Amino acid sequence: MDSGSTAGPVPADQRNVRRHNLGLVMRSISVTGWSTRARLATATGLTKATVSSLAGELIEAGLLTESGAQAKGATGRPGSVLEVNRQGHAGIGLEINVDYVAACVTDLGHRVRYHRVECVDNRTEHTASLNRLARMASAALRAAEEFELTPQGIAVAVPGIVEPERGRLLRAPNLDWTDLPIVDLLAERLGLAPTEIWLDNEANLAALGVLWFAGGSAWGDFVYVSSEIGVGAGIVTDGQMYRGARGFAGEIGHVSIDPSGEPCGCGGRGCIERYCGQEAILRSAGLPTDTATSTGNPDGPVTELLAALEREEQRAVRAVRRAGEALGVGLANVINVIDPDTVVLGGIFTPLAPWLVEPLTAALAGQAIAAPWSPPRVAVSSLGPEAAVRGAAGLVIEQMLSDPARITRSGQGLGNNRHV
Amino acid sequence: MDSGSTAGPVPADQRNVRRHNLGLVMRSISVTGWSTRARLATATGLTKATVSSLAGELIEAGLLTESGAQAKGATGRPGSVLEVNRQGHAGIGLEINVDYVAACVTDLGHRVRYHRVECVDNRTEHTASLNRLARMASAALRAAEEFELTPQGIAVAVPGIVEPERGRLLRAPNLDWTDLPIVDLLAERLGLAPTEIWLDNEANLAALGVLWFAGGSAWGDFVYVSSEIGVGAGIVTDGQMYRGARGFAGEIGHVSIDPSGEPCGCGGRGCIERYCGQEAILRSAGLPTDTATSTGNPDGPVTELLAALEREEQRAVRAVRRAGEALGVGLANVINVIDPDTVVLGGIFTPLAPWLVEPLTAALAGQAIAAPWSPPRVAVSSLGPEAAVRGAAGLVIEQMLSDPARITRSGQGLGNNRHV
Repeated sequence: MDSGSTAGPVPADQRNVRRHNLGLVMRSISVTGWSTRARLATATGLTKATVSSLAGELIEAGLLTESGAQAKGATGRPGSVLEVNRQGHAGIGLEINVDYVAACVTDLGHRVRYHRVECVDNRTEHTASLNRLARMASAALRAAEEFELTPQGIAVAVPGIVEPERGRLLRAPNLDWTDLPIVDLLAERLGLAPTEIWLDNEANLAALGVLWFAGGSAWGDFVYVSSEIGVGAGIVTDGQMYRGARGFAGEIGHVSIDPSGEPCGCGGRGCIERYCGQEAILRSAGLPTDTATSTGNPDGPVTELLAALEREEQRAVRAVRRAGEALGVGLANVINVIDPDTVVLGGIFTPLAPWLVEPLTAALAGQAIAAPWSPPRVAVSSLGPEAAVRGAAGLVIEQMLSDPARITRSGQGLGNNRHV
Repeated sequence: MDSGSTAGPVPADQRNVRRHNLGLVMRSISVTGWSTRARLATATGLTKATVSSLAGELIEAGLLTESGAQAKGATGRPGSVLEVNRQGHAGIGLEINVDYVAACVTDLGHRVRYHRVECVDNRTEHTASLNRLARMASAALRAAEEFELTPQGIAVAVPGIVEPERGRLLRAPNLDWTDLPIVDLLAERLGLAPTEIWLDNEANLAALGVLWFAGGSAWGDFVYVSSEIGVGAGIVTDGQMYRGARGFAGEIGHVSIDPSGEPCGCGGRGCIERYCGQEAILRSAGLPTDTATSTGNPDGPVTELLAALEREEQRAVRAVRRAGEALGVGLANVINVIDPDTVVLGGIFTPLAPWLVEPLTAALAGQAIAAPWSPPRVAVSSLGPEAAVRGAAGLVIEQMLSDPARITRSGQGLGNNRHV
């Protein structure tokens, strides 16, 4: 009996098959950083002839390099090693946060080649902040050029809820910015097409940052939660961002733990960022909240707090313990709803972890219903506040790794990709 | 250039391909209830010869019937209509809840053929409850036999957290049952293999019940939340149950809205079921909480409450409004985390909806951060407390629709499926 040779409902056309297979080969190499044609054929189930043809196209497009080849043009030679090209394409990450702006450049091998942070209070009219961001983007583009890298896209992290498809920031409560076409405003300043710039929530990008740049795949399904001025979170399941039906998932900072509590900039009450955001902790510790811009150091706001904690000053210790308890109660709510393997702490929670984790874990154990059988794991990201801007650059890299045909067809990098 | 003809990384072997294609054909028919071989070939991308061969196997296994065929054996005749066989296999659903036990039988076309509820307080030692459940299961099996249906599995809904793989109930706070091998205990009483019985959380199964039996696919990604004694929820994304990393997702009844609130049976404090569970509402309305078993009516507990609401008694109206506000705050937390398209109310929330929805929607609007751009839709399930037991029977049906090879290989229904 004929059992049919087509596994899926719609036979893919040749072009889609090739596009899929280019991604398959690229993705397969990027996991370990290198491979050979023979290994790739085994790993992908494709014939060696197909792998050689695909690899040739990826090399030509600057996505792979070949080492150990005896002679140029001998692309079929089975023993030669194929590697992700760390000297070709690049991704640019940008971040606007409440009290700093950041930019970075990463290569296809996820190495950070350039990273800059400028401390500035962005809680003003948006024009100055976007001008500054455009200057930082230009500097990052120049740096990429100096490194002989070809940027293929820019992704921007913002501390608010966004519509990525339209490139709009809908609302950033802690900046008090509403409904801004960030992508268009930035594209205009940089002379780029809006299709070359992507926008996403900083907590989502930070979660992807720890996934791609800090070994996050070892944490299984995880919720990344971080504090800068606000508290944000990103949910990663099956190695993918969980965005929700309309892209607004992960707004953990606005989970309420006290409906009659303090009003929040979002319009709600008792939101957990009122208890464990950076300003709330500093205020509760009796410390100034505006040290970032005065010290010009992105860790500025918590430097004094960390010093006080090291000196075991009781007011500071109590403030961080209370924040840990509040965060634990809020995260228990999150765990009761989505049941992740791991909670990953980042942002200023990274340096505060030695004082924060114990009260947080105790609060989790008290309120997470599955805790007796399967206590949630709590991990700390090594990246701290750098996660979001890295995730932004990583987003551009991921596009290239999963759909290299985009590069092989269009070619020349930013400013030349006029296709939609 | 050879672009490769294999779309996936691993070439599927013939047996898996046929298995996949049997599911493809069965699933394709079940969406509309009928099709023809020609339509199926178009819909699935398979050849007509393959579709005819697969359809023949599905007819032989009792999963499909053919009408309009001119002669038996003329299985290739293109004009004849293939339908899901509503007179063949069946699924049995069972439910233990705090104050009732239920059973139902559904056919492959999702018609409920048999449905029984017995009101009983199960907050006692588990043996009597399981004996009663086994008697109800036997009655359902006899009913299926009378209808000439062949049950292919039993699924059991329980109000607690479970390990479906091991068939164990870990903890049901409102029954005060801990660590019970429900599947083994029931299999023993019914003389069936444990592999023929599945166990799942009642709220998960209720969410699937509204998805499969009450047009839930129109709601997009949804959170189904219902109240019986406790408050449970199931999360459906992309037409699938979202179970979380360890299967404990959706425990919305134990989301806290007040960390210093009343202690809950789960060990936490201020859980939303303390504010909008059935008992909490009845108590707050000044009504008796134990009418279910005394009236012998599953709607018993809320009958008096509904009468009081109809009479516009202020204490009852205030009690339901307060429950709606608390539920709105709790659900806003859920929405801020997972961002569904729709919140669907069920269980006793269905009859209470006329009084509950307005304060609930107002509380949602105040606390859900994306509400100004995309206010969450609130819908009411028509199923009420029947959703879970239907979802349980539906789970058995879904297994047959998505993997019909399981039936075509093993054949004879419950008591004969000794394979794992």
